[in-house]
Amino acid sequence: MTLSPPTPTLDLSHLKTSADEVLDGFLVRKAAARTPDLPDLATSLRRFIAVGGKRIRPLFTLVGWHAAGCNGTVRAAHHLAASLELFHAFALIHDDVMDRSDTRRGHPTVHRHFAQQHAGLPAAAEQFGTGAAILVGDLALMWSDELLHTGNLTPQQLAAVRPLLNKMRTEVIQGQYLDLNLDWRRHQQPDVQAALTVIRYKTAKYTIERPLQLGAALAGAPPTLLAALSAYAIPLGEAFQLRDDLLGVFGDPATTGKPALDDLREGKATVLIALALTRARRAQADQLRLFLGCPTLTEEQAQVARRIITASGAVRTVETMIAERYEQAQAALDTAPIDPAVKDALHRLADTAVRRRT
Amino acid sequence: MTLSPPTPTLDLSHLKTSADEVLDGFLVRKAAARTPDLPDLATSLRRFIAVGGKRIRPLFTLVGWHAAGCNGTVRAAHHLAASLELFHAFALIHDDVMDRSDTRRGHPTVHRHFAQQHAGLPAAAEQFGTGAAILVGDLALMWSDELLHTGNLTPQQLAAVRPLLNKMRTEVIQGQYLDLNLDWRRHQQPDVQAALTVIRYKTAKYTIERPLQLGAALAGAPPTLLAALSAYAIPLGEAFQLRDDLLGVFGDPATTGKPALDDLREGKATVLIALALTRARRAQADQLRLFLGCPTLTEEQAQVARRIITASGAVRTVETMIAERYEQAQAALDTAPIDPAVKDALHRLADTAVRRRT
Repeated sequence: MTLSPPTPTLDLSHLKTSADEVLDGFLVRKAAARTPDLPDLATSLRRFIAVGGKRIRPLFTLVGWHAAGCNGTVRAAHHLAASLELFHAFALIHDDVMDRSDTRRGHPTVHRHFAQQHAGLPAAAEQFGTGAAILVGDLALMWSDELLHTGNLTPQQLAAVRPLLNKMRTEVIQGQYLDLNLDWRRHQQPDVQAALTVIRYKTAKYTIERPLQLGAALAGAPPTLLAALSAYAIPLGEAFQLRDDLLGVFGDPATTGKPALDDLREGKATVLIALALTRARRAQADQLRLFLGCPTLTEEQAQVARRIITASGAVRTVETMIAERYEQAQAALDTAPIDPAVKDALHRLADTAVRRRT
Repeated sequence: MTLSPPTPTLDLSHLKTSADEVLDGFLVRKAAARTPDLPDLATSLRRFIAVGGKRIRPLFTLVGWHAAGCNGTVRAAHHLAASLELFHAFALIHDDVMDRSDTRRGHPTVHRHFAQQHAGLPAAAEQFGTGAAILVGDLALMWSDELLHTGNLTPQQLAAVRPLLNKMRTEVIQGQYLDLNLDWRRHQQPDVQAALTVIRYKTAKYTIERPLQLGAALAGAPPTLLAALSAYAIPLGEAFQLRDDLLGVFGDPATTGKPALDDLREGKATVLIALALTRARRAQADQLRLFLGCPTLTEEQAQVARRIITASGAVRTVETMIAERYEQAQAALDTAPIDPAVKDALHRLADTAVRRRT
């Protein structure tokens, strides 16, 4: 009896650490700048990134780079991966300002943090906090660019990466604006299809498809490989966000790092909520609608909301949607022209994205 | 008697038009995108840019490019110039959100414009407007980058331009944050020196020094030329902002396009105001302090404030500071290694910057 040789595996935690080191080194240098007041902003940004985050985008970037054969310097790959995490910090910080969220990753949001510095004058402190957080987000966006462009990419690499990066950035803003409009219309009519469109732009493309493709493009991937990665990424990204929506209402705050009331209090127009409002009996839908977006919602009221959502069948449907998309992503991977060790890493990432509890 | 040959002149209005055409063409294409909701944001951005603005940064960029001999394609120069105007749109849109300003360039600010779409529900409309304006600003920043990187710069040009661009961006954010902190401290103690530091970062470097240097760097300028441009730009930029501060309190709204009450109502911590608070007699300074930052300030109260500021001698001092800096800029130009036709254009730009009424 012969044993097949062991498949080499990609060490995901090592990939994560290497991107983190590049990112943290960059921010340490920024925070050490001898220019008035700038270190405040850099330190706040560094703290925001250090306290949490799953580093999904850098991971997919580096796995994408491996999928296309790791061509080019590892420095360029790390800089690209780290720059996407910095871009993500920008997106989250501005998102929190727009949603007026108080906590993120178990800590006060950036605008709350700055507002607390002047807690004696609440109204002015609020404006100061918002202003400072907008600036920290702006810096994160600018510096994500600077980090990429100091990675010594070749002109060919830059030419391969920039168009995808331009697309990704515009898609994120578009997803945010669709979401803003959806939140606005939510009170009138729930719209499952519109909520799925938001997911596609805000998460599926931004969190998985583009990072994978960017990493692959850096290594010179041909269009066929980029398309294969997309076929895996889009359903997985949707499943990831659908899981997020479930965790946002039913998750354990001790593991998710955010209060399980937030999504309900913000009245987020998720697929889960749109399904529940569409399917619940009229009286229950009306009661749920009253709770959604109520900033003073109590844990008791949230329990009632959760029961209505579950009774409507929305939770079961979302679980089915997640399972279907997960299967679709796995099937796309089976036929993809990718090295077995990289496929194995992508399978593991798919599991984490869909089966997680945080 | 022989006539000296006529000096060829740089047609500034032609330079302005060419950069505008590139910028508008770019935004027209973005507004025509067939993706949901994005055209709203692109159209709003295009309108914001079309209704006004002096195009100072594109002008200085293109004059800087001429100062260094116009090397490289004119396409690259136009893209760089247009990208700086788009960057400026980003800075203004976010600045207006941070300051909660209602008008800009004689029109409602971007966040006001979006809030008005949902005027029926004022509190939620406010949040919607702020969110949409943050997104439009983010897009302008991202697209300024995209515009630059689609200008077919050579790798050498990109290598010359990126470090200056990185510096400029960080300086702007730093200037904004210094300003935010200054506005915060204003109530306690006026600080002329701190207000001058803000001017240096927010205006002198950002509006004049960096655009000139960026244009020159694109054409391959040596460090000596970059330094000579800086020696002209910094005093001129300070003079420009000091003029702006005077116009913000004493200007004619019909020509400036913004109410002459805004700076007082916002309580902007300008050099003018810091000087007035420092030099006015105690009772008058106390009265002025009451008016500053009062959002309901009437035109009658503004008249009293203006009289206090003038009586303190602050206006005369600021006019002297402007004249000194203007002279300094002109003197720096005299010894600079620059072609006479370009020098002439820089002299004209200096005149416009300092003697303007808008």
